[in-house]
Amino acid sequence: MIHPFSFSRIPYIIFGTGKLYELYNIIPEFGNNVLFVIGGSSLIQSGIWNEFTSKLENSSINFSSVSLSGEPSPTLIDDTVAKFHNKNLDLIVGIGGGSVLDAGKAISAMLTKDGSIKNYLEGVGNKIHDGKKIPYIAIPTTSGTGSEATKNAVISEIGPDGFKKSLRHDNLIPNITIIDSELMVSCPPSVSAACGMDAFTQLLEAYVSSKASPITDSLAYTGLKFISRNILLACSTGASNVNIRGKMAYGALISGIVLANAGLGIIHGLASPIGGFFKIPHGIVCGTLLAEATKINIKTLQNQGPNGKLALKKYAQIGAMLKEKYYGQEDKIQEYCVNLVETLEKWTEVLKIDRLGKYGINRQIIHKIVENTGMKNNPVILNKENISKIILNRL
Amino acid sequence: MIHPFSFSRIPYIIFGTGKLYELYNIIPEFGNNVLFVIGGSSLIQSGIWNEFTSKLENSSINFSSVSLSGEPSPTLIDDTVAKFHNKNLDLIVGIGGGSVLDAGKAISAMLTKDGSIKNYLEGVGNKIHDGKKIPYIAIPTTSGTGSEATKNAVISEIGPDGFKKSLRHDNLIPNITIIDSELMVSCPPSVSAACGMDAFTQLLEAYVSSKASPITDSLAYTGLKFISRNILLACSTGASNVNIRGKMAYGALISGIVLANAGLGIIHGLASPIGGFFKIPHGIVCGTLLAEATKINIKTLQNQGPNGKLALKKYAQIGAMLKEKYYGQEDKIQEYCVNLVETLEKWTEVLKIDRLGKYGINRQIIHKIVENTGMKNNPVILNKENISKIILNRL
Repeated sequence: MIHPFSFSRIPYIIFGTGKLYELYNIIPEFGNNVLFVIGGSSLIQSGIWNEFTSKLENSSINFSSVSLSGEPSPTLIDDTVAKFHNKNLDLIVGIGGGSVLDAGKAISAMLTKDGSIKNYLEGVGNKIHDGKKIPYIAIPTTSGTGSEATKNAVISEIGPDGFKKSLRHDNLIPNITIIDSELMVSCPPSVSAACGMDAFTQLLEAYVSSKASPITDSLAYTGLKFISRNILLACSTGASNVNIRGKMAYGALISGIVLANAGLGIIHGLASPIGGFFKIPHGIVCGTLLAEATKINIKTLQNQGPNGKLALKKYAQIGAMLKEKYYGQEDKIQEYCVNLVETLEKWTEVLKIDRLGKYGINRQIIHKIVENTGMKNNPVILNKENISKIILNRL
Repeated sequence: MIHPFSFSRIPYIIFGTGKLYELYNIIPEFGNNVLFVIGGSSLIQSGIWNEFTSKLENSSINFSSVSLSGEPSPTLIDDTVAKFHNKNLDLIVGIGGGSVLDAGKAISAMLTKDGSIKNYLEGVGNKIHDGKKIPYIAIPTTSGTGSEATKNAVISEIGPDGFKKSLRHDNLIPNITIIDSELMVSCPPSVSAACGMDAFTQLLEAYVSSKASPITDSLAYTGLKFISRNILLACSTGASNVNIRGKMAYGALISGIVLANAGLGIIHGLASPIGGFFKIPHGIVCGTLLAEATKINIKTLQNQGPNGKLALKKYAQIGAMLKEKYYGQEDKIQEYCVNLVETLEKWTEVLKIDRLGKYGINRQIIHKIVENTGMKNNPVILNKENISKIILNRL
């Protein structure tokens, strides 16, 4: 039987090499006063930003831009919003990695409000955002967080009392997302690797999630296939190939759609406190924990008897797909689950995903991390010992 | 490589048995003045309508309802719109089969306009609808057209100069769709059969469409799986089983999402003139032509050499899935394509789908039908002789 589910609206998606330039036609549909939120470096260095804006300068469109780097903090959002509060913007366009897209999303939502974004962050403030925003177009330059399709913006305050929390509303899903793989070819291998592992994590966590539906399952399965067949290439010989980058970008986009509708699991449960307490890229946290958390999830599910069967079968389906086989018989669950974990371990090694220790995380802090970790929609409840083990094995 | 594509927004989907009653909470979010557009008989006979409205009568919500039967004509839409033009409606809710949902969609779009809907129909009028509408919630009681997820309303004027044309705009996608399989259990076998064949046709035509994308492919594949495993049951021993009805309803919903984004093929190309010239249910047209048109598409693709390979492979994937096998090697294309056609022929027979002759269609009219048939996004261009043959073999 199909269990009850709901599925949010998704952005209008425009996918294809060179589609960035469709913006010239799209912007006037919203008005002629636009703010671009862009990343710190690679977009400008690649020359694309100059090429894009030179034509805009000769048009009737008024535009400003802010360039951001690092994961967005409440202060960064509040300051930017203050600067543009009375500028009557018709449209915000975010072009960048996940942090830039989250920042653009948060700015578009906070331009309709007074006071700090902190008031509206889940688990931080006590106000609920009503979804009113300036229209927002998200254009990713990395293939990772899927922020181009999600309804939340992750805001971080890093430090001992730090947090990594979301501003969330169904209406914050970008109005339009443009996926142009030409924007990804200049993304360096280490960033592509961390982002790709993040996208795979999101797809896998949504696929085995307790909130999964046939819609998220069908989308996630294909997303996982695209990422798994291209992740190693995109970080090596295929880095400048727009077809390979396009397949990674597709997987990342889908990861955003499915996480917004099926939720995530223990890896993202851990990423929230780890990313709040330490300055460590989100993709590294997910990538480094992916194989280990999957192994412990599978082991725990195997001890659940019939209750664990559905999620185990789903892990096995992905393990089979990685072997270009199709999961059919139950007697292969074990074999395919092992293959899944071994493949993830291999990727972690080949892609040289950092261990947590490099960012200052040590044994002493594990207890505090575990205390602040939520299970989200993990297919099985893990006890504190197992959660600690995931971190410990990746220090 | 992934070819460029775009993908429209989809409705907010609420799926589950008994979810009709969520309307009590949803309506006030839009306002307190609502018009229900409902079908002629089964909803009322089942007692659900009375049960539903009795609670509404004791609330602060003002509601009116119009009951419609048959496929909507321009006059029907114009008359209904005239009646409610000055009523300041906040929301339209359509509850019924595809015709009712199309009527509700058209009414919600025309309440913001003056003049006849004819002015806005593709290929009929010369005005372009701007997408402005009264918010619209679509709740299907059959599993067929997928109108609950599409951006068009099909309007028919039947007769020798008749037509079957669409009012279309991205913004006409319903705001919300509620899929409640309890509403489908009273649908009689002959209607369930025609609707199920229509949904399968839409899924298959979108799957092999020249405009298909990885998103529509992943969704359509699972939709086809659900319909194929349940269509015979839903029309026989499983008719009153909400799980089976739910799976059919899921397939129909997905058929709407994928047709809105990948388009359709020759069967719907034929359904447009046939449905305009003759009073014949849309599901019967699609159902009766499905096997024959698929056979001729496959034969034509086989003569195209490498150009036909992609679509043939997709037909083979579905043929393999029907055998609970997975398409892997190219040397099985022929075997799996044959299985697809044979399965469709079997369904047509078992479900007793009428032939066209029963509705007055004969050899003499074939030429006129073919002259008015568009190829839509059929994976291959068929010549007039082959198009005629599809009709001839189903007279």
